[in-house]
Amino acid sequence: MNAPLASSLPVRTVDVIRKKRDGAELARAEIEHLVRGYTSGEIPDYQAAAWLMSAVIRGLTRAETAALTDAMLRSGEILDLSELSPKKIDKHSTGGVGDKTSLVLAPLAATAGLVVPMISGRGLGHTGGTLDKLEAIPGFNVNLPVPEFRRVLRTCGCAMVGQTAEIAPADRKLYALRDVTGTVESPYLICASIMSKKLAEGIDGLVLDVKTGSGAFMKKQEDATFLAELMVETGERMGKQVVALITDMDQPLGLLVGNSLEVAEVVDVLRGEGPDDLRELCSELAGWMLQLGGATNSVAEGRGMAERLLRSGQALEKFGQMVALQGGDSSVIDDPRLLPNAQHKMEVVSSRTGWITKIDCEAIGIACIILGGGREKKEDSIDPSVGIALHKKVGDGIARGEPICRIHYNSQTRAARAKTLIEASYRIGDTPPPQRPLIHRVIEKSGDKN
Amino acid sequence: MNAPLASSLPVRTVDVIRKKRDGAELARAEIEHLVRGYTSGEIPDYQAAAWLMSAVIRGLTRAETAALTDAMLRSGEILDLSELSPKKIDKHSTGGVGDKTSLVLAPLAATAGLVVPMISGRGLGHTGGTLDKLEAIPGFNVNLPVPEFRRVLRTCGCAMVGQTAEIAPADRKLYALRDVTGTVESPYLICASIMSKKLAEGIDGLVLDVKTGSGAFMKKQEDATFLAELMVETGERMGKQVVALITDMDQPLGLLVGNSLEVAEVVDVLRGEGPDDLRELCSELAGWMLQLGGATNSVAEGRGMAERLLRSGQALEKFGQMVALQGGDSSVIDDPRLLPNAQHKMEVVSSRTGWITKIDCEAIGIACIILGGGREKKEDSIDPSVGIALHKKVGDGIARGEPICRIHYNSQTRAARAKTLIEASYRIGDTPPPQRPLIHRVIEKSGDKN
Repeated sequence: MNAPLASSLPVRTVDVIRKKRDGAELARAEIEHLVRGYTSGEIPDYQAAAWLMSAVIRGLTRAETAALTDAMLRSGEILDLSELSPKKIDKHSTGGVGDKTSLVLAPLAATAGLVVPMISGRGLGHTGGTLDKLEAIPGFNVNLPVPEFRRVLRTCGCAMVGQTAEIAPADRKLYALRDVTGTVESPYLICASIMSKKLAEGIDGLVLDVKTGSGAFMKKQEDATFLAELMVETGERMGKQVVALITDMDQPLGLLVGNSLEVAEVVDVLRGEGPDDLRELCSELAGWMLQLGGATNSVAEGRGMAERLLRSGQALEKFGQMVALQGGDSSVIDDPRLLPNAQHKMEVVSSRTGWITKIDCEAIGIACIILGGGREKKEDSIDPSVGIALHKKVGDGIARGEPICRIHYNSQTRAARAKTLIEASYRIGDTPPPQRPLIHRVIEKSGDKN
Repeated sequence: MNAPLASSLPVRTVDVIRKKRDGAELARAEIEHLVRGYTSGEIPDYQAAAWLMSAVIRGLTRAETAALTDAMLRSGEILDLSELSPKKIDKHSTGGVGDKTSLVLAPLAATAGLVVPMISGRGLGHTGGTLDKLEAIPGFNVNLPVPEFRRVLRTCGCAMVGQTAEIAPADRKLYALRDVTGTVESPYLICASIMSKKLAEGIDGLVLDVKTGSGAFMKKQEDATFLAELMVETGERMGKQVVALITDMDQPLGLLVGNSLEVAEVVDVLRGEGPDDLRELCSELAGWMLQLGGATNSVAEGRGMAERLLRSGQALEKFGQMVALQGGDSSVIDDPRLLPNAQHKMEVVSSRTGWITKIDCEAIGIACIILGGGREKKEDSIDPSVGIALHKKVGDGIARGEPICRIHYNSQTRAARAKTLIEASYRIGDTPPPQRPLIHRVIEKSGDKN
């Protein structure tokens, strides 16, 4: 109702909000006005909340998504790693259960000669977080100041830290607001949030691991594909090489879920051992990283090189070097029993004979949180020692009374709750289920539908 | 993303927001949670803003609109006027330019034996406000405490006041937030805002004057009809008799625009004189009020009674009584020159000969604000003396150089700006335009399309 008088005034925040509300495309300057104004505190929470909701419901165009990503990126510091001559390549996963590939890939790609400046996050919802896993290693410090981060990168080619206050402060502030205003679930806002933080790392290229299935945020493959295409195109518009793999998260990745347990499984993979699915996904993602970074001429060649570096023990050695440089106890690599260990273990057994046809992967993630391996509320602290060791996965046969998995726990009450959830999460049928591929699709260029 | 863990927690505001965001219908209890929580301060502005935006874009069902109206109504005091035996009937207009019917109708319906407990508003956007007009009368007090409001009602059957802090505080708080978050323009929220305040007056029936045309908020007749039907059905669901007239606001109502000028025109109409369109609309609206209140058996009979009461001078006498009871100088009735008078007058003349085919009514409203007769910013004070006296209206013939209207002003600069706007607002053509009806439609029952 203010429109008639507004024409004589400068551009107002409320008019930008109304424009998006009515489904129109915002200009780059209008998006910059919102991001800059909100970050500086000139635009209050309630105006940002109204705009976020209009953006969630109306959606953003590709140009708006790129402009938003760019404004959020430029709200803070962009690392300048030009002093390091190799290509800077990172990997980002949208999150899942048992997804510990980052801990393998950073040292693996660094061993192949790339620089991996990885800024990671904590567990979100039912998913685990890279920082929480790293902190299972006694002494490991994820809060490195920028000069220290550079020093570790220079020394060993990879470093893994948390988001600092200098990196994309707009995202930090907007994310906290989205969390309490029902505006989290939007591919456009998710894309801008992820890409602004990743591009602030000063990277040349990025491999995205977009998860889909019952343990992913994007349960449907079409939603995962939509987000992947959006991120690839946004990266391209910002002059970066970005590739996205849509990978399966319909059951936990690997066999171990829980922070200490996952570090132990990472060490296995870095030895060229560990479960097939995890090792295979790590090789595939590493192949793409090496190809993007020019370390190899093709993805297949990159995959081959990755497998050799795992089997040779060089990647494991690099991991130990990074752990030590970040203050961690690298002796856990030789003896994972030095990692925090739960006091009790309990087997969960099958109530019938048959084939495992389905595991509700989100339920496994929640069971791990209930054990204390993740946060129910933001303030919660994490117990790194607890978790779940799966004995059987989808497609395996099982007999009545045979153990399905082992719960590592410190509280009887929590273990009982987790057990109920885990029992309900397994479906056992009379015939083996069709096999789901580990990698559903690769999106190399915007609009590419291979 | 919090849904999986949320099931073990009580209903959370963010889940209600997400539900509306995704287009689902909220339960009455969820709407009550939002309104009560926001009014009490437990729900912060940013959550209310996100919900308002989702409601504007997704729309509300009829049940949600009624639940919202009811929750807002019950956020404050509901006047109990059961001590007064006649039917309590009010009228509400969605606002326009030169719309001074309230000042005629309150005393007119009271003269016919009804009680009119009228709580009005100030000018909004380009439109005038009943309270601003009443305050042009020296001494008139629109801020009566509730006991005083009752006393005036008991003594003369009508009283005209502003919204007190006790009446629908949820609306007051939500309206202030809507104003700065781009969530004003929603028929559902407009309906709940209007109806919650009107029903708090403790009335039995309500006549709604929903304006349409270039000087209305609802420029299109279909939008006005949609809002009218929504308000009629909401009133019905809350057990009240409500009728809505869709009336024309494609040019100013009557000939005078500006606070003092409009009071003078009200006095003319209360004498049975004044311009035809204004007198005719007042009779029509009064006819519906009298019929709803049971003072007459039909609208036609009510219209006839209204015309007699105007011609007899009884309604004017009632107006004088109310003015005096509310502290105003009732001698302005006998001598409107006692009202604040602008220092200067200037004629605006026609640049060509022809027929007036169109007046941009919103522009006339803005011209009056520019003169000082309304507020450009909330803090602005109003100059009651300024305004515009139209000599010609749509359908009138005019010669080149002949005066179109007279500007009453106190500032040369403001007058020059207003003049430019007024000149541009008149369209003069070679043939007379088709006549627009004064009353487009009457909506008596929800879904009634007569």
